[in-house]
Amino acid sequence: MIIDCHGHYTTAPPQLQAFRDAQLARLADPSLPPAALAAIGDDELRDSVENHQLKVLRQRGADLMLFSPKASGMSHHVAGPATARAWAAASNDLVHRVTELFPAHFAGVCQLPQTPGGALDGAVAELRRCVSELGFVGCNLNPDPSGGYWTAPPLTDPYWFPLFEAMTELDVPAMIHVSTSCNPSAHTLGAHYLNADTSVFMQLLQGDLFTRFPGLRLVIPHGGGAVPYHWGRYRGLAMRMGRPDPAELLRENVFFDTCVYHQAGIDLLHRVIGASNVLFASEMLGAVRGADPETGVAWDDTRVYVERLGLSAEQRHRVYEANARRVYPRLHARLLTEGR
Amino acid sequence: MIIDCHGHYTTAPPQLQAFRDAQLARLADPSLPPAALAAIGDDELRDSVENHQLKVLRQRGADLMLFSPKASGMSHHVAGPATARAWAAASNDLVHRVTELFPAHFAGVCQLPQTPGGALDGAVAELRRCVSELGFVGCNLNPDPSGGYWTAPPLTDPYWFPLFEAMTELDVPAMIHVSTSCNPSAHTLGAHYLNADTSVFMQLLQGDLFTRFPGLRLVIPHGGGAVPYHWGRYRGLAMRMGRPDPAELLRENVFFDTCVYHQAGIDLLHRVIGASNVLFASEMLGAVRGADPETGVAWDDTRVYVERLGLSAEQRHRVYEANARRVYPRLHARLLTEGR
Repeated sequence: MIIDCHGHYTTAPPQLQAFRDAQLARLADPSLPPAALAAIGDDELRDSVENHQLKVLRQRGADLMLFSPKASGMSHHVAGPATARAWAAASNDLVHRVTELFPAHFAGVCQLPQTPGGALDGAVAELRRCVSELGFVGCNLNPDPSGGYWTAPPLTDPYWFPLFEAMTELDVPAMIHVSTSCNPSAHTLGAHYLNADTSVFMQLLQGDLFTRFPGLRLVIPHGGGAVPYHWGRYRGLAMRMGRPDPAELLRENVFFDTCVYHQAGIDLLHRVIGASNVLFASEMLGAVRGADPETGVAWDDTRVYVERLGLSAEQRHRVYEANARRVYPRLHARLLTEGR
Repeated sequence: MIIDCHGHYTTAPPQLQAFRDAQLARLADPSLPPAALAAIGDDELRDSVENHQLKVLRQRGADLMLFSPKASGMSHHVAGPATARAWAAASNDLVHRVTELFPAHFAGVCQLPQTPGGALDGAVAELRRCVSELGFVGCNLNPDPSGGYWTAPPLTDPYWFPLFEAMTELDVPAMIHVSTSCNPSAHTLGAHYLNADTSVFMQLLQGDLFTRFPGLRLVIPHGGGAVPYHWGRYRGLAMRMGRPDPAELLRENVFFDTCVYHQAGIDLLHRVIGASNVLFASEMLGAVRGADPETGVAWDDTRVYVERLGLSAEQRHRVYEANARRVYPRLHARLLTEGR
């Protein structure tokens, strides 16, 4: 089977955004009533994915997508833990309903109610709720809740440990994923996302996080940002700093996805990183929609690029399925009970 | 000939750092006397490059290096325009002396006295001094003087126009180069440098800077950060935003260097960007020193990787020499007068 480990609910019914708008309006004017999510029928939810993610998933021959709330919509820069908790819960609950409507095709990955500088207890509680009560298999972790100003400590800092302890206990990974950039110098999709991937990999190279949390697994999306392209730089820096070779991070802890939207990029990813730590993903329908006019291939139809790698059957199995089962053991367990 | 367009004076005599230390001490305690650069003899300057950059340049068969003050030492985050001006002047004057001692092998590229949020008049004045009086052929422009917090507007903002006007008038390019990261989440060499390259390319894709400044030329170092690896993403984003294809930026305005420290990265750079807008560079002796234990090749010996590209004679000439002459016309003019 083919598992796409990186999809966001970018096509949620408009009631969700209306709820968010009401939240933000109330932050600006506390005399307004609390935001309430208007009713959304099952048919409306079905329509919102059947003609979008599910249709494209089927067209491209993939079987299952790990599905999380829209990344740019998480907007962790908005202050206030109660607002963040309610926003994450509403977003995750909708994702959960989609996974219940199409259990063969979607598994949930949750948004965490982070805030800039805020304690992580709300994030831990929402992670526990989503995993234990809603059957989610992972979470999205934002290393920069400020939205482009990078005021949070590196992921190797004890600030993050409560979350890593809960992830380890629940045996779920995190995909590293920032949200909207509030910084006009860093475009959300063309700079901030990739820079976050790059920065976090270097944070991990500088620290000893996986000595403390050997079972922790992090997926760095968008093909690892700039990292595979500059793999020699990371190897050389690691040597100079007296750190282990970056390949050591890749064994059981750090994984890259295939959200790289051209053949040359996917070729480099495979040449440098190999098949053991790369998870198939498209992030459709996400940052980059439409098709290359020169080839007719949709930018985010990453399966086309992966197919052209000429992988062996075993490598193909790893990238499309086995690595995802390894990184997301709760997904694997669920698939096993379904005989898949 | 082979021109290395990216070298920093990382081996300056210790008097330079002592001057900087005295500057910083006086900022902390204004009762201290003004910093003064202790005398540095010509022999000391000769030694500082003959056994380092010049020796390696010769060993690797390159002829000339564009030489600028140490990038991480620029530390534009330090407030105070007078301090920044004196620091840039001292650093540039030393580079100038090296270029006078070894005129066949070094040409100057200047540090600008930028400060976070500060007016650019001091930077313009120092650029004019270095180009008109010291014979420099370009400058290093820091798009984030804050040192990792990205508080400056994008390069397409009118804030930067005085500098671009002067660069256009003087017909000199800028290499985009940040300095030390003060942000523990963004390692200077393993994240901040690459992220800056990526962010600036996206800023340029979003704006119309080259409509206003058609003669402006910017070199984005470190192989363009994450950009070539994610070229499909940039093409797709440009289409979605109704912007010209990113290849349009590459014609006469934006250039990448070859500071990518492994074969797979250089292969990708060439495959995606081609030979017309890539300038040979090593940034030795810089961020990544030492050699790959698997191959024995020094990480920053980028000529080895370029040689293995199998370029045609014409492509080779462009990457090693002709593109640098095009981007740095004052260098070209000087070489012509020398019969080179």
